[in-house]
Amino acid sequence: MASIVGDANVVANRDQLAVYEYDWTRRWHGRPLLAVRPSSAEEVARVFCACREASVGIVMHGGNTGLVGGATPFDGEVVLDTVRLAGIGDVDRSSRQFTVGAGVTLERAQEHARAAGLDVAVDLAARSRATIGGMVATDAGGALAMRYGTMRSSVAGVEAVLSDGRVLTRLSGLLKDNAGYDLPALLIGSEGTLAAITRVRLMLVKRPAHRVVALIGLESFADAVDLVADLRDRLGVTLEAVEFFDRIGMELACARLRKRDPLPAQHVVYVLLQIADEEDPVGLLAGAVDGPASEAMAVAEDRERQRALWSYRETLNEAVTARGVVLKYDVSVPQASIAQFVAAVDVQIRAFDERATLVIYGHLGDGNLHVNLLDVELDERQVDDALSKLVADHGGSISAEHGIGRAKRAILHPTRSSAEIEAMRAIKRALDPSETLGRERVLPPIEASGR
Amino acid sequence: MASIVGDANVVANRDQLAVYEYDWTRRWHGRPLLAVRPSSAEEVARVFCACREASVGIVMHGGNTGLVGGATPFDGEVVLDTVRLAGIGDVDRSSRQFTVGAGVTLERAQEHARAAGLDVAVDLAARSRATIGGMVATDAGGALAMRYGTMRSSVAGVEAVLSDGRVLTRLSGLLKDNAGYDLPALLIGSEGTLAAITRVRLMLVKRPAHRVVALIGLESFADAVDLVADLRDRLGVTLEAVEFFDRIGMELACARLRKRDPLPAQHVVYVLLQIADEEDPVGLLAGAVDGPASEAMAVAEDRERQRALWSYRETLNEAVTARGVVLKYDVSVPQASIAQFVAAVDVQIRAFDERATLVIYGHLGDGNLHVNLLDVELDERQVDDALSKLVADHGGSISAEHGIGRAKRAILHPTRSSAEIEAMRAIKRALDPSETLGRERVLPPIEASGR
Repeated sequence: MASIVGDANVVANRDQLAVYEYDWTRRWHGRPLLAVRPSSAEEVARVFCACREASVGIVMHGGNTGLVGGATPFDGEVVLDTVRLAGIGDVDRSSRQFTVGAGVTLERAQEHARAAGLDVAVDLAARSRATIGGMVATDAGGALAMRYGTMRSSVAGVEAVLSDGRVLTRLSGLLKDNAGYDLPALLIGSEGTLAAITRVRLMLVKRPAHRVVALIGLESFADAVDLVADLRDRLGVTLEAVEFFDRIGMELACARLRKRDPLPAQHVVYVLLQIADEEDPVGLLAGAVDGPASEAMAVAEDRERQRALWSYRETLNEAVTARGVVLKYDVSVPQASIAQFVAAVDVQIRAFDERATLVIYGHLGDGNLHVNLLDVELDERQVDDALSKLVADHGGSISAEHGIGRAKRAILHPTRSSAEIEAMRAIKRALDPSETLGRERVLPPIEASGR
Repeated sequence: MASIVGDANVVANRDQLAVYEYDWTRRWHGRPLLAVRPSSAEEVARVFCACREASVGIVMHGGNTGLVGGATPFDGEVVLDTVRLAGIGDVDRSSRQFTVGAGVTLERAQEHARAAGLDVAVDLAARSRATIGGMVATDAGGALAMRYGTMRSSVAGVEAVLSDGRVLTRLSGLLKDNAGYDLPALLIGSEGTLAAITRVRLMLVKRPAHRVVALIGLESFADAVDLVADLRDRLGVTLEAVEFFDRIGMELACARLRKRDPLPAQHVVYVLLQIADEEDPVGLLAGAVDGPASEAMAVAEDRERQRALWSYRETLNEAVTARGVVLKYDVSVPQASIAQFVAAVDVQIRAFDERATLVIYGHLGDGNLHVNLLDVELDERQVDDALSKLVADHGGSISAEHGIGRAKRAILHPTRSSAEIEAMRAIKRALDPSETLGRERVLPPIEASGR
């Protein structure tokens, strides 16, 4: 390894390896054999060949902001840290694209894009640490996905290394290119189990100059879903984000931020929306929200107050994690099923344990709900099975934006049928026959595939 | 076959099979064993199993509007005609989606969407015959791709049948769903060689109510590319399409339409642009186009005149084909390389044959150029090789939106590297090990893969 990446970029010391041993929620851990920090696709290729020859597994590791243990090693694995895949190319104004190394953080990429008057279309609370490579590998979503799509919609190409060391390069950023199978499309969201993504051709957007943010209290999830449909009709492309959280979420956020509830009364569900336009969109907001919703609404026109309103939503992941061991689910369901699904989850969890605290928040505009269970001593497997069945019954997915990783592989079925899982296994065997990359991740254990 | 789809839906009579024997350009042909018209994924699965058992190849066949022979049988193949995969579901207003059978034409899908106040985001001149299934299988592009993306961007899910009869179903239309590999993303653009797409969950858009169309004459491709960059900056999301054709294209169009040139003088290149907004966008056009461009401009404000301006661009494919045997290329290059690429093609073709007529038209907004050669007696293989090398040298693709099919498989390399082609072969073997679907299409013959 030292002959490939240099002594300084091989981590073998147990103390220095500690940073790789746990994910940030500390729910997943493993003791890696060593960690390597290659600086190019060619070095990644040589690392892969060495590991393959030695029959050692590799786990890709970016900003360690994942929530499903996908980047946490199993004992004895080699960690491939992408931190030195740090190149960042000039923004091409004619295509509104640039090429960026997998290890570059979202925040750094945002700064680079903004200096050219453009922006990255995906944004996440973990922006200061989440890497572009990790975001592509998981098809990250975030709050702006309802307007600009998930990470997939921002990728105009990738450079990637297969486990046998072959490098796939598609970085010219063509908007139309159907010459053969779309390998980048397959790699996006494959969580490092089919190839290592080393560089990304990122498509940028020109976000409107002005925005307004509003927090609205509502008395039911059904009302919140109806509000989203109305807002979408009335606001079109000016609607950038519609987030939500429940009453317990508001309490947790207030406690963690040491701030007051921005609304005078308590509500069942809170909708946070952001409107962006070339001209001041406050008028658009006034025209789009009427009736009772407009009476329980806090509006932020300046950037500082907007950040303050967003902070209630963005602190929730940390606020929940800080409460101790928690069962976390990141699901999506069709818009039309959201209210029904939330009610069904509530009934199911209460049937398991009356004292359980259920905290639901997420991205209402795209049907992505983060379901968290606190204060419970439930059998995780039992909850996993019940939740995944409820999700499937509502036409949803057991993973919306976090991925499957180690955490959800046993419950990929029934979201994915046996036929789909078998097709995935066939693709995995085709591209990584030695099973060097991301072992025991994403694809379920054979006995749990629902066959 | 009759026991699966019924007597009436098996075509074995030589006269009735004639419709399947040629593509519409009549450059590709083959005599099928028979044609079958299944009406469901289950029937498709049974047809596949029967063919696989008999070691007979299958070719998928939609509206027969392809230009690369992808839907034309080889001698002895079974044609799977999608015409009876004709279901069309209600538009769900909360998600702006509906589910549509693979055999439904684009025009029919557009009518259905428009009745709900929405629209299909992809549009093509061949809309009356091109099918949704074929458009997904080829990741069709068209004129609106610069604004709304290619077909891939409009697909929220598919139902597909693998060659062993297993059915993959992902039709709930989730906007965020990263549970395992994105099999629909792999199937989109795979041209019927990995699976048969039987149903599609289509995402619709709300297109603005008002539009203006303008035709502008310019004196160089470089000027045209600069104009596109300016228009994009000035018009943002209101810019729906920027098409182009050259002077010979204008002459061919005028001759075929029996109409006059809409501009008073001749120009080197013509740019057709469409702006759409919620209010009358004529003011936007006036603000976006200035200088010499504004002096050689025809503007169409009403729908009839807009159709008339579009007709010059939309008749070109037929006008060129009507001129007899033609060499056709559908390439894309990065925006920044368009002018250089066009000049290089001109030099190359003239070096081959001074009398050759080169007609270039296409979609300037996304770098997609249709290169046509008339009046030539050139060795097709020689031109293929030269063009594909020029495309690769400019960072482009040998297929933008038409696909590879039978026509371009020998020149998939160098657009795709040997590593990419080997990865595609591995995927093909994984999902269709018996090589029942789309034999000798898309993937190059082994000897020509550039290894």
